[in-house]
Amino acid sequence: MEIKTSTKFVAELIGTFGLVLFGCGAAAVAGADTLAGLSGLGLLGIALAFGLSVVVFAYAIGGITGCHINPAITIAMLVNGKISVSDAITYIIAQFIGALLGAFVLQQVLSGQLAGFTPVEWAYGSNGWGDGYQNEYGTGAAFLAEAVLTFLFLFVIFAVTSKWGNGTMAGLAIGLTLVLIHLVAIPITGTSVNPARSFGPAILAGGAAVSQLWLFIVAPIVGAVVAAVVWRLLEKKN
Amino acid sequence: MEIKTSTKFVAELIGTFGLVLFGCGAAAVAGADTLAGLSGLGLLGIALAFGLSVVVFAYAIGGITGCHINPAITIAMLVNGKISVSDAITYIIAQFIGALLGAFVLQQVLSGQLAGFTPVEWAYGSNGWGDGYQNEYGTGAAFLAEAVLTFLFLFVIFAVTSKWGNGTMAGLAIGLTLVLIHLVAIPITGTSVNPARSFGPAILAGGAAVSQLWLFIVAPIVGAVVAAVVWRLLEKKN
Amino acid sequence: MEIKTSTKFVAELIGTFGLVLFGCGAAAVAGADTLAGLSGLGLLGIALAFGLSVVVFAYAIGGITGCHINPAITIAMLVNGKISVSDAITYIIAQFIGALLGAFVLQQVLSGQLAGFTPVEWAYGSNGWGDGYQNEYGTGAAFLAEAVLTFLFLFVIFAVTSKWGNGTMAGLAIGLTLVLIHLVAIPITGTSVNPARSFGPAILAGGAAVSQLWLFIVAPIVGAVVAAVVWRLLEKKN
Amino acid sequence: MEIKTSTKFVAELIGTFGLVLFGCGAAAVAGADTLAGLSGLGLLGIALAFGLSVVVFAYAIGGITGCHINPAITIAMLVNGKISVSDAITYIIAQFIGALLGAFVLQQVLSGQLAGFTPVEWAYGSNGWGDGYQNEYGTGAAFLAEAVLTFLFLFVIFAVTSKWGNGTMAGLAIGLTLVLIHLVAIPITGTSVNPARSFGPAILAGGAAVSQLWLFIVAPIVGAVVAAVVWRLLEKKN
Repeated sequence: MEIKTSTKFVAELIGTFGLVLFGCGAAAVAGADTLAGLSGLGLLGIALAFGLSVVVFAYAIGGITGCHINPAITIAMLVNGKISVSDAITYIIAQFIGALLGAFVLQQVLSGQLAGFTPVEWAYGSNGWGDGYQNEYGTGAAFLAEAVLTFLFLFVIFAVTSKWGNGTMAGLAIGLTLVLIHLVAIPITGTSVNPARSFGPAILAGGAAVSQLWLFIVAPIVGAVVAAVVWRLLEKKN
Repeated sequence: MEIKTSTKFVAELIGTFGLVLFGCGAAAVAGADTLAGLSGLGLLGIALAFGLSVVVFAYAIGGITGCHINPAITIAMLVNGKISVSDAITYIIAQFIGALLGAFVLQQVLSGQLAGFTPVEWAYGSNGWGDGYQNEYGTGAAFLAEAVLTFLFLFVIFAVTSKWGNGTMAGLAIGLTLVLIHLVAIPITGTSVNPARSFGPAILAGGAAVSQLWLFIVAPIVGAVVAAVVWRLLEKKN
Repeated sequence: MEIKTSTKFVAELIGTFGLVLFGCGAAAVAGADTLAGLSGLGLLGIALAFGLSVVVFAYAIGGITGCHINPAITIAMLVNGKISVSDAITYIIAQFIGALLGAFVLQQVLSGQLAGFTPVEWAYGSNGWGDGYQNEYGTGAAFLAEAVLTFLFLFVIFAVTSKWGNGTMAGLAIGLTLVLIHLVAIPITGTSVNPARSFGPAILAGGAAVSQLWLFIVAPIVGAVVAAVVWRLLEKKN
Repeated sequence: MEIKTSTKFVAELIGTFGLVLFGCGAAAVAGADTLAGLSGLGLLGIALAFGLSVVVFAYAIGGITGCHINPAITIAMLVNGKISVSDAITYIIAQFIGALLGAFVLQQVLSGQLAGFTPVEWAYGSNGWGDGYQNEYGTGAAFLAEAVLTFLFLFVIFAVTSKWGNGTMAGLAIGLTLVLIHLVAIPITGTSVNPARSFGPAILAGGAAVSQLWLFIVAPIVGAVVAAVVWRLLEKKN
């Protein structure tokens, strides 16, 4: 029996809500603690927060929507005909709303810090590049990193869910790929590979996070579509 | 054949005993080492200690009791009619006794430190907020964090154990969700989302840990019951 | 068809060899790096080294010997009649030889450090307590920690391999339990819960490591036998 | 139906590309951050980057090529007759090209750092030993470590994919073995156990990385072939 559209909408919304709350929450926490000279989570903790969120929701809502919680994945699935246009639109709207809600709840909690809350800490959840953002990588490096890493992300997703994959372990493999992507790219762009994940914090942080949002929409979609095409060619030949 | 009530009692008791011994034990160890300026476990190590305890006991006693080891989970399962009232009472009593025993054994071991044992180190296993507790978050922030994170915890639990879930991976997904919850909330409340886990250390630590215990009973139960209701609505429609 | 005794001997020997080489190797490396003020593995890295070694060999040789690689486990299995006396003797001899070989290869590699190798670094792989050993815990605390943690280790092992367990995930759950045990007990005794693992480094390190070896043989066996008895009672009733 | 050779070629190429991009990328990132005194990934993060890459690609392309992405594995499989000579040649060519491409993309991204890119940071992804390389281990220690650790790697690979192994968990066990190998050997040689992984960064880094490349080709192959012979003897007897 076909699962109701409203159920899929709720699943994608809560999944993306959780991804942003866990991932950006860990980034804000680790960022604040590193500034304070304490024993924070470090890059490894933040990478695990984003990647394990995908592992968890893959097993929670994978049976309902396939657990995209990322517009770049939804578009790649649409390109390869694995999802209908109406479902794709439903998913993407739910993803952007969920990401915004996750960022909003995180902001509410962090602003409840009696000792004082500063936007600097919050901004650690935002993506960016160039002047004043971490190691100050250029636009080309940021775009290349986001596009290539999203390509690898989608290549793994198509492979583990193909006839050659293992259904039981697919969710783990996909989430661990996101861990790997973060291990490399946090010091470069903060790591997006997901337009909705960048959208939520950007709207609340404002400034450069908003004016640079375009790259975190375009580059992941480019990488995802290339992976969809490459995978279709591989499958067609066998 | 129905499993005997006494077997279920022992399983929930040992599971909650292990959760507190491993989780609060890691917190006490990491706290002491961070104070001493050594290379401690950090927030990541503590988060893994709590979450992997749930992974381990999910596979050890999941076939006996479902591995609740948390009164908020037992109450949510009762609300959705997945457990009898008499089993729920048995589980909750076992959980509180197990948590107290875990905290007691931990106290005995730590007090055997020849170089001197101070209550400060021990208190790292307790939950709290406000004046003098870590980053000094307000009551509202503490309640919001505990309730929302318990909601996500129970949402994942209901989802992975539903008809859409994967039985083999359910325990891993549930435990990793607890890792994620700790990655965000350790600097806020020390992370409870489990009334029994807060109860054990609080009884031995006394002071603020006892007077603030109410929040770590009420907030997790509120979040868990909301998740139970949301999930029942989702399932009923499909 | 029954697997040959010589095959079982080789499997247990290589498994214990790997456990000591990976676990004590990580401890020696992390210890040396922490001394040098660099970004070492920390307690978390050492805990993962021991625990993941068990995960790996559980899937590699579990089908051949059950992957004990620990005399305390072999004795507990003997107590509950899950292994023959002759197999138990074979396993234990292989475990002690494997552990000694692992420690020997590690010593050979570490002594090849051109910039100079000191016994201090090597000793990080040895277990101990009291004067001059890490946080200087007393004999009672060391014995209590080793016995209770080995009890929990064997409780999980009996549970996940019982009729209520999940065969696919058993190896992961058992290995993660060893991670948890190390997260708590590294600062106490260095964590043994395994007489063979303590034996290897002690023979090469000498001194206190040898004179204190008795505790790391007796305490784990006490904890393991108690778990065997408790589990037999639980199973008999159902 | 037999999978096309061109599909296998693409799979091994992208897998090795990902291994080098994720693993050496994390090493470069962690190295740079440690130099800058920030909270980097540490040895644990780098070890996880290499090992989890193998986990991920094992589930992604394991059904296509068996996921070797390492010439030492391909040669060991050839020795034990598990792969044809023509496939082995295809795999090894794809692995060297993929590793070089991964190192090249990483160099392009890192050189896009506006604040300035220095070869010192990049070199963290290269293997080596002796004067000026980390802890300055001797040639004998480096060779012994690489050969013994590759032996354990291949022993686990043959075991988990044998009739005694568990197909679902094989990829996880193999990848975690590579994590363990890195936990021990990063401070010794940077950890290769894979000629292609050493080749990629060496070609771009030049200098000692090239003149020392022979050890990272010979030692892993020696360890792998010994494991193949040992395993064949074990299997033949049962």
